[in-house]
Amino acid sequence: MNNSEIKDFSRLCIHTITTKPWSLEEAAKKFSAAGIAGISVWRDTLEGRDIRSTGKMLREYGLQIISLVRGGFFASVNEAKRTDVIKDNLNAIEEAYELGTPLLVLVCGADPQQSLEKSREHIRYGIKKILPKAEELGIKLAIEPLHPMYADTRSAIITLRQANDFVEKLNSPWLGVVIDVYHIWWDPVLIKEIIRCGQLGKIFAFHICDWKVPTEDLLYDRGLMGEGCIDIRQIRNQVEIAGFDGFHEVEIFSEKYWNSNQDEFLEKIKDAYLKHV
Amino acid sequence: MNNSEIKDFSRLCIHTITTKPWSLEEAAKKFSAAGIAGISVWRDTLEGRDIRSTGKMLREYGLQIISLVRGGFFASVNEAKRTDVIKDNLNAIEEAYELGTPLLVLVCGADPQQSLEKSREHIRYGIKKILPKAEELGIKLAIEPLHPMYADTRSAIITLRQANDFVEKLNSPWLGVVIDVYHIWWDPVLIKEIIRCGQLGKIFAFHICDWKVPTEDLLYDRGLMGEGCIDIRQIRNQVEIAGFDGFHEVEIFSEKYWNSNQDEFLEKIKDAYLKHV
Repeated sequence: MNNSEIKDFSRLCIHTITTKPWSLEEAAKKFSAAGIAGISVWRDTLEGRDIRSTGKMLREYGLQIISLVRGGFFASVNEAKRTDVIKDNLNAIEEAYELGTPLLVLVCGADPQQSLEKSREHIRYGIKKILPKAEELGIKLAIEPLHPMYADTRSAIITLRQANDFVEKLNSPWLGVVIDVYHIWWDPVLIKEIIRCGQLGKIFAFHICDWKVPTEDLLYDRGLMGEGCIDIRQIRNQVEIAGFDGFHEVEIFSEKYWNSNQDEFLEKIKDAYLKHV
Repeated sequence: MNNSEIKDFSRLCIHTITTKPWSLEEAAKKFSAAGIAGISVWRDTLEGRDIRSTGKMLREYGLQIISLVRGGFFASVNEAKRTDVIKDNLNAIEEAYELGTPLLVLVCGADPQQSLEKSREHIRYGIKKILPKAEELGIKLAIEPLHPMYADTRSAIITLRQANDFVEKLNSPWLGVVIDVYHIWWDPVLIKEIIRCGQLGKIFAFHICDWKVPTEDLLYDRGLMGEGCIDIRQIRNQVEIAGFDGFHEVEIFSEKYWNSNQDEFLEKIKDAYLKHV
């Protein structure tokens, strides 16, 4: 928990979406062979699988399953959709349980046809509806505040302050926050809110990548750590000073890297992790 | 100053960049013929011109020149660049004076090679250096906080709260704020900060366009009012309740519209203005 460099991969986790071209087995095998300790599983990779045996397979590769990604998307002008999405989130909590991961990441949603305030009401309602199941199965839920450029359709929870306000108010030990450097690096009150999130005991996960200059696509042009302008190490230190001692999760959406050799990309991730995180 | 619809174009202003394919003369002639009362002039349109006679020409078309766009870009790791940019801003103030507009818009800048805090120091220093000239020539300067997706290279002043803090601290009657719906619509504390900006007497300009869903380009895919998810009328009302009684300035960067028939585009702007602002 200090400013020192990271020396090994014992707290490194990679999201399956980061190496999207690989199947889940391939990713598990490669991460494991590379000495990486953690994997976060995107739900699309579980489609058509027996989830319990998938979890077993990942553990047999020596991997810790850090989180299931992602539930959420509670906001909609359409009531039937809101009901369906709550069911889907209940399913996601069961999937997390069967997979054997302690955490479900929530991208909370927004509907451009209504105000952000209204979307936040839907989010609050949805989370309240799924918390009992989370508690029953022992799965933690983590709200990921997203960058303001996603406020139209992806998240009405935009700043760490809002996420903190949310979890403080809902006041459940099963509900916390994901801090992702990509979404929050620009925030003038970032350090204050990281400290607050730590004091609340709510830093449930920490995601890393970088903001490329220029960024050429709003969704699929995230950078490898060190490629952009985010001071990742400083934020990592703040998060750890605030009490977080969990994994550093690499979550990169990048057409460029998805179109590249994934073995070389994995080497680049390891290298960038030691140099810039 | 109420929730009522706008009935005419006496407070409508269009930025020259909005109809970029048109020369300044063409834009002036068309805006004037369309009954639009105001024009904001981008500096690129003044290149190689006699600025005094250009101002005279615009006024002869019956147009009020609302602002010159834009100065700023004070932040740089390179000291020589910072010195040059201050000179350029002093020139911009003189250009505004010669043109006969009371306002220079500032996009304050950011350098991804340094922290946002450092960039803000450069901005503070630069603005202090140019304020005496602004005062001497009677030109107001207006800081435009930009959307967080521009925090890498365009503005380390990201939120209205920061802009308010800045102008409050620098405490000059010649320094205020531009509120542009595109940059600030997502902000959870927006209304509070609009009220504060009004109480400070600092709402110097109001810019409008829309956030398209989806937005396909970080720079050049702004929408016409009503095409996106911003509640422009609500923000306009807030700004006016806060005391603003100036022009509504249409500033749209759009490859799509630039590649379209500009006469038809101008009609669409007028129509969208009455319907959605």
